[in-house]
Amino acid sequence: MPSLAPYDRKLDYSYAPGIFPSMEAIKKAPELVRRLLISAQAEDSEGVAALTELCRARNIRVETADKALARLSGKGNCYAAAVFEKRPGVLNPEAAHIVLHHPSDAGNLGTILRTALGFGFFDIALIQPCADVFQPHVVRSSMGALFSLRVREYADFEAYRADFPGHAAYPFMLDGSVTLEEALKAPPRRPYCLIFGNEGTGLPPEFSKTGTPVRIEHSGDIDSLNLSIAASIGMYRFRQATL
Amino acid sequence: MPSLAPYDRKLDYSYAPGIFPSMEAIKKAPELVRRLLISAQAEDSEGVAALTELCRARNIRVETADKALARLSGKGNCYAAAVFEKRPGVLNPEAAHIVLHHPSDAGNLGTILRTALGFGFFDIALIQPCADVFQPHVVRSSMGALFSLRVREYADFEAYRADFPGHAAYPFMLDGSVTLEEALKAPPRRPYCLIFGNEGTGLPPEFSKTGTPVRIEHSGDIDSLNLSIAASIGMYRFRQATL
Repeated sequence: MPSLAPYDRKLDYSYAPGIFPSMEAIKKAPELVRRLLISAQAEDSEGVAALTELCRARNIRVETADKALARLSGKGNCYAAAVFEKRPGVLNPEAAHIVLHHPSDAGNLGTILRTALGFGFFDIALIQPCADVFQPHVVRSSMGALFSLRVREYADFEAYRADFPGHAAYPFMLDGSVTLEEALKAPPRRPYCLIFGNEGTGLPPEFSKTGTPVRIEHSGDIDSLNLSIAASIGMYRFRQATL
Repeated sequence: MPSLAPYDRKLDYSYAPGIFPSMEAIKKAPELVRRLLISAQAEDSEGVAALTELCRARNIRVETADKALARLSGKGNCYAAAVFEKRPGVLNPEAAHIVLHHPSDAGNLGTILRTALGFGFFDIALIQPCADVFQPHVVRSSMGALFSLRVREYADFEAYRADFPGHAAYPFMLDGSVTLEEALKAPPRRPYCLIFGNEGTGLPPEFSKTGTPVRIEHSGDIDSLNLSIAASIGMYRFRQATL
């Protein structure tokens, strides 16, 4: 492995910055972890010691790399980061999917991944162009949820649909033909996919002809809900309805 | 009014940065708006022209202030900002309240305000210490929702409770005694308040003796939901249950 570069989408590896995200990487996806970077000044801290111990048990190399960590830290401190190989996930054809169409905000994406994991959605399709799910900031804001999920990018929605033609589709749209609560009066047909659009523009109008377009009722006092809020309410309700 | 200072919590005024938040300030709370700052280079833009027009109709002074706007902009551009007087809201004793206990993240706070407005919750109590609801970043991330809400800070939860002893309390806690769905099997007694804790630490354990502690079911794969996600799911479900 060459010397560590600043993160770039083109690299075949990325960084999980922070004790907790690194822990998740090592526990949930040890086969992807190439090494663990730690800060010299935090070598004896409890969190770093626990990480080092985990790495020893799994034969993962540990090295001090204060410069690389400082680069990852931004404003905060970062005492450890797992270096991990990027690998596209293979979505489970039997499971419910979350489809994010052109998500552009890295923080939103991390929050959605974490919430998806919390509600038992393990399969995530990202329709390009999209924020980079491997970007260290996304990994951090997902709290390492990325390492428990199967995430795959698709060039367009048709490419996703070609792989999973049988999923009942629920696009979430401001002018969806049924409310979320109406959509759930009967349990959804399985498997299904919940589709959410871009933060600023939502889903393109043609999605109104795809599956069952759903709207989350809110007052006219706001234009729309934040994407991560809408996605979380949708995931929560669908999960409750299919328990 | 003295010359414009960089924003500080101690000032008796703040800034609503951006065309949309400024528009909300002027439309929803014109009595609080002291003047409108605009950028010389955007004087003829559609958004700024609409703002200027609104100000003329309401006798609000408009001035170019590129230096002050640059200071507010951060990384992005900011072509306009309403300068508004900070004034604590007076909560409606008949209405449902959202109580945020020690919220510390400005972005979360803005998102929660916007979602609250969308689900028809107009009354927000903040228990100190808390993020500054008047901070320009909060105003911007609330998309100006602040100007449609009544928001008041309290020194502690007891001070809030003394003002509204009759509200049925629903503290949201990881170990709440009932699930959100169980809590809503019977329509909630009105008026009620939904109480959410700090991003990192949640609500203190003593809240388990307050009202009906509620938990939002999620898997053990994550420690907790993000605060703005939990608050939004709680608000959505309570609103649906009391429509």
